[in-house]
Amino acid sequence: MNERSHYRSAGVDVTAGEEAVRRIQPWAQHTFRPEVIGGLGGFAGLFRLPQGVTDPVLVAGCDGVGTKLAIAEALGSWETVGIDLVAMCVNDIVTVGAQPLFFLDYIATGRLDPEAIERVVASMSRALSQIQTALLGGEMAEMPGFYPVGRMDLAGFAVGVVARDQILDGSAVQPGDWLIGLPSSGLHANGYALVRRILVEQGLRYDDVVPGIGLLGEVLLTPTRLYVHALQEALRIGGVHAAAHLTGGGWQGNLPRVLPQNCCAHVQRTAWEVPQLFWKLSEWGGINTEEMFATFNMGIGMVLLVDAQAAEAIMVRLADSGEEPVMLGQVEKGPRGIRWEE
Amino acid sequence: MNERSHYRSAGVDVTAGEEAVRRIQPWAQHTFRPEVIGGLGGFAGLFRLPQGVTDPVLVAGCDGVGTKLAIAEALGSWETVGIDLVAMCVNDIVTVGAQPLFFLDYIATGRLDPEAIERVVASMSRALSQIQTALLGGEMAEMPGFYPVGRMDLAGFAVGVVARDQILDGSAVQPGDWLIGLPSSGLHANGYALVRRILVEQGLRYDDVVPGIGLLGEVLLTPTRLYVHALQEALRIGGVHAAAHLTGGGWQGNLPRVLPQNCCAHVQRTAWEVPQLFWKLSEWGGINTEEMFATFNMGIGMVLLVDAQAAEAIMVRLADSGEEPVMLGQVEKGPRGIRWEE
Repeated sequence: MNERSHYRSAGVDVTAGEEAVRRIQPWAQHTFRPEVIGGLGGFAGLFRLPQGVTDPVLVAGCDGVGTKLAIAEALGSWETVGIDLVAMCVNDIVTVGAQPLFFLDYIATGRLDPEAIERVVASMSRALSQIQTALLGGEMAEMPGFYPVGRMDLAGFAVGVVARDQILDGSAVQPGDWLIGLPSSGLHANGYALVRRILVEQGLRYDDVVPGIGLLGEVLLTPTRLYVHALQEALRIGGVHAAAHLTGGGWQGNLPRVLPQNCCAHVQRTAWEVPQLFWKLSEWGGINTEEMFATFNMGIGMVLLVDAQAAEAIMVRLADSGEEPVMLGQVEKGPRGIRWEE
Repeated sequence: MNERSHYRSAGVDVTAGEEAVRRIQPWAQHTFRPEVIGGLGGFAGLFRLPQGVTDPVLVAGCDGVGTKLAIAEALGSWETVGIDLVAMCVNDIVTVGAQPLFFLDYIATGRLDPEAIERVVASMSRALSQIQTALLGGEMAEMPGFYPVGRMDLAGFAVGVVARDQILDGSAVQPGDWLIGLPSSGLHANGYALVRRILVEQGLRYDDVVPGIGLLGEVLLTPTRLYVHALQEALRIGGVHAAAHLTGGGWQGNLPRVLPQNCCAHVQRTAWEVPQLFWKLSEWGGINTEEMFATFNMGIGMVLLVDAQAAEAIMVRLADSGEEPVMLGQVEKGPRGIRWEE
């Protein structure tokens, strides 16, 4: 019995690990930028800092996909969760004005399935290629007994850079700033423990088709949108004071985070149409509107707080670049928080 | 029913999350360096690049602790796995000559236990403080149903910096270089699936005391050593051509990675005393010596490949700094690999 078979009898498949590495390498290489030094296979990933950023500040974010992964597992559908992973991380780092540089992933599983791993990494690679971000490395952990066969957890880690005097720290936010919303693609990757409980209680299955919503499994696996390009477009115009990524905790949990103490976000709920999925969840779960807005993104994944002078130009630029920006309301004086207008 | 209780009934405890955040914040702040901008609580962590590094190259590594976590879980002992997590990541990035800057962690669990989370983060914080590395952020994911209650998975991400002309890429390695070994503290965080299977087969329990080894659970949870200071000491002398972190795959899987094609590592097995634990595992598992060296670190966690001219001075400097460096052998001409001398 050699080392591999010893390890295999303990539930760790070295050959599968090698096959998985062979399968994912081209997907990583596909994302490489000229700054990547030395390729894969070293103990660490190397990335040369881009020239021309004055007083560079590194910006880092870490996130997972949560129990959205349980739906991917139930459906054996691994084509989109890698997009979620990338988006959850990079959408966080762009809120401070950073340009994403590279990404690393952690994949943990009960039994290495090279094909499933490849599908996950391919989906990360597609998302990363879109935003010129390198997949610089990662860890693939086979943990027999710790995870059931077929289960995968994912963690992602994104690093970007911003010039120190370009950091969006919210300090410039002032009454009169416009609130510009960028539509989400659905739930993104938050609130799934609650969503799954609601479905169970309602006796709904992922292969059910719900009128006005569609095939449940497909709708629930819709990948998180990437806001990198939209932020870049807005930053080119100038006048962006802050950005809030509406993730766990929904509106209440995220929008006030970028407001100064004496500023309130005055938001018109009629400014956009909340997708049917959210209202159905509200109805099924008996969750009132206020609670819904404190849990989910309700159709808006990112809010930009921009100078009133620049707002119109930013709206136009975003629309020209294919976004569908929504004028949500304005910042006004008042206790830090959200003031809803029906 | 408010949002929190809705979420709690779905298995997500928002209050526990807040308590966990409150408990871990001081531990993170304890690691902060002057380069950290803005503190915790933002969407991303910000870290000003240190001045004075010419043509800076960012170095990133990602790792987990593997099924060593199953032992921590079985014993409810969360005081050391955070050290493992930090060490597994930073030991990787220092192999290319990087100075660690910051670290992020991902903690996933079935039910948030603020006290257990605090113990894990406190152990990370202690390790990070030792090596002047900031805990810049992280993600705490409560995933009911996905993880059993009491289970925690950990992933870590470390970022460092190195001047481009100071990268240790192994290209300078040449015949005549000395191989200097730095002792490990035990298994570090590799091979635990195999170790656990062996223990089960032998009917051994974590609270068994094995003569010559000690209390099994304690020995198996001995945290991974940090090699950051040792590397820094050696780099100050100069003449370091490469470093190999002996992790998964043991000697065979890691030492050849830093050798040029025409170079072979000639290692004397008698140069150091392999700790009893490894021989016991070999005996219990019926694993021969060759296989052991291709799976475990066998008592040496890091190997430095250094210029013969500098080797003596590096050995002295390491010893002066409290290390116990071992002269393992030398690089010689030959097919890339390890040539063992008994």
